[in-house]
Amino acid sequence: MTSSFKVIAETEPGGRRAQLHLPHQTVQTPVFMPVGTAGTVKAVPQDTLESLGAEIILGNTYHLYLRPGHETIHRLGGLHRFISWPHGLLTDSGGFQVFSLSGLRKVSDEGVRFRSHLDGSSHFFTPEHSMDVQIALGADIAMAFDECTEYPADRSRAEESLRLTMAWARRSLDHFRAHRSQVVWRDEFEGRTQSLFGIVQGGMYSDLRRECAARLVEMDFDGYAIGGLSVGEPRALTLEMIAEVLPLLPADKPRYVMGVGYPDEIEQYARLGVDMMDCVLPTRAARHGLLFTSEGRLNIKAKRYAEDQSAPDPACNCPVCRRYTRAYLRHLMQAGEPLSGTLNTIHNLAYYFAVMQRVRQSLNP
Amino acid sequence: MTSSFKVIAETEPGGRRAQLHLPHQTVQTPVFMPVGTAGTVKAVPQDTLESLGAEIILGNTYHLYLRPGHETIHRLGGLHRFISWPHGLLTDSGGFQVFSLSGLRKVSDEGVRFRSHLDGSSHFFTPEHSMDVQIALGADIAMAFDECTEYPADRSRAEESLRLTMAWARRSLDHFRAHRSQVVWRDEFEGRTQSLFGIVQGGMYSDLRRECAARLVEMDFDGYAIGGLSVGEPRALTLEMIAEVLPLLPADKPRYVMGVGYPDEIEQYARLGVDMMDCVLPTRAARHGLLFTSEGRLNIKAKRYAEDQSAPDPACNCPVCRRYTRAYLRHLMQAGEPLSGTLNTIHNLAYYFAVMQRVRQSLNP
Repeated sequence: MTSSFKVIAETEPGGRRAQLHLPHQTVQTPVFMPVGTAGTVKAVPQDTLESLGAEIILGNTYHLYLRPGHETIHRLGGLHRFISWPHGLLTDSGGFQVFSLSGLRKVSDEGVRFRSHLDGSSHFFTPEHSMDVQIALGADIAMAFDECTEYPADRSRAEESLRLTMAWARRSLDHFRAHRSQVVWRDEFEGRTQSLFGIVQGGMYSDLRRECAARLVEMDFDGYAIGGLSVGEPRALTLEMIAEVLPLLPADKPRYVMGVGYPDEIEQYARLGVDMMDCVLPTRAARHGLLFTSEGRLNIKAKRYAEDQSAPDPACNCPVCRRYTRAYLRHLMQAGEPLSGTLNTIHNLAYYFAVMQRVRQSLNP
Repeated sequence: MTSSFKVIAETEPGGRRAQLHLPHQTVQTPVFMPVGTAGTVKAVPQDTLESLGAEIILGNTYHLYLRPGHETIHRLGGLHRFISWPHGLLTDSGGFQVFSLSGLRKVSDEGVRFRSHLDGSSHFFTPEHSMDVQIALGADIAMAFDECTEYPADRSRAEESLRLTMAWARRSLDHFRAHRSQVVWRDEFEGRTQSLFGIVQGGMYSDLRRECAARLVEMDFDGYAIGGLSVGEPRALTLEMIAEVLPLLPADKPRYVMGVGYPDEIEQYARLGVDMMDCVLPTRAARHGLLFTSEGRLNIKAKRYAEDQSAPDPACNCPVCRRYTRAYLRHLMQAGEPLSGTLNTIHNLAYYFAVMQRVRQSLNP
């Protein structure tokens, strides 16, 4: 057994309230997952994440493979233990970061050769290697190795990308099934082990997306992600692709849209039946001074907040809004103080969690 | 009434256990005060400082005057409210930062003209202006405006610096007494207001130090600091200067050594009868990866910690040592993650607080 997924309630037009039982954590869904690229949700201590109610965070396979290295993390007892996060963890496959971060990417049927963005060193990732790395990291959920189609992409490019992604999904799954019992924490959880999710690609072509979904479902993954979205396309197109794919995915497995989005987007997708989402937006925007609030987006660097004694979001009950003023957060940002990133991030995550909590409450039976 | 200082127990060779009753906080002394230069102890949220047991922190008059400006902070209710720190606060006079940070410093009897390290703009500080700024900031304790003698300095330079410091101490005290009732929080504390401490200078000349101390005591400050130490002189000389001055200071007023030091130093000075100390060392060193531990100094960047699963300091009970490993802290540092500064700083402050707690316990009646 890997994970189990129990739908508690369903509504029109498809939104559902469920529980995802992972070895390390039962996750209430729909859920927003903060991104912890290099084994830390940037600027936020783990106990603060816990107190905000985070149940699952992401790690980036590409980054952790390069530094400190998956073998090091494996020797240290896996990613949960390494970063002291005894809750839900998901690692992406590295495919998206190879696509977006590394120089000199060369794709073949076998895999991808790429240069590290850290030191220019050359590396080769295959689906099998991505699985080995993710098993060494030992997150509760691993992702199939995919090729992310850029936007815009013409049909032949999208078809070729899809062909690769399908072949790599098969190889990912076969290798993962053969080796997942090697995960370092297996004995702590009565033999329960990692889950593997497949990733639906297909660019912005509905028929390719549908074909991809159908073939992945045949392979019988533990869950299904929709990838290759939020890569520059208009939001209506993002929504169209999600709406095309969702009905084709099995109702009894979790559905995960990768890399989205703004607060109103994650609410919208959750109400359509998306169970899991992740995005760097709340954390990255926070470090640049962009706060999400019940009154809209707030650029805390703006001069008009220099003597504003109200809470960042007066309607928010997070530890930052209960204690600090806009004037203070603006000052921290102006002065380049590290506390700025920490406090802004805490608020933005709290805001995202509150959005999802409200959605879950409205979906409750 | 400003502050009151109650000695609970005294020991040979002079160490004393006392309570410093400030308007915002009763501080258990001897105490180590973290430095919060720009209105934040770098990288550490205020609630974390509280949970570590911090009772008083510093703000830097020079930095806060330049950004966001003392008038802004005054309009926002003073520094306590601005930074949400309803506990003890002390501001230095700006003298040391003018000396160490600003370019093109021109000293006259009237005051100091200097250029901002931020934008090169020209500013003029007099003792009266420093008092006005510190009253606007409204810390529980303000410091007289002094001229910090560089090291090494010949006797004629030290004499001239002392002459200025004495004249400025008098002017600081007169102006402060005439205006301290203007502090913004006065009505919240039944008319209690700020304290002003004089600063003993005199370079490394014992007789100048003694003369300075005697004349400051005549002026009757609320407390006495020893400044101009830890500016590059050998540690034996620091100790000699402290030992010269301490016996000349009134036993019923707090004694504060500015800008020290290493953990063994602050313990040593506390046992000699120093009640208050501050230093950027634990916080600044932390951000550079230097941890203070019961096993000595530990450079967490070192490769030998890459797979070290022990706590940063196995004998430490702080939230960082209870949760994280050396391997993880090293990784955060290597990856340039902001959490690195936060966790390292929390540990170092906890270590300093534990040192002082141990000293206080051994001094208890």
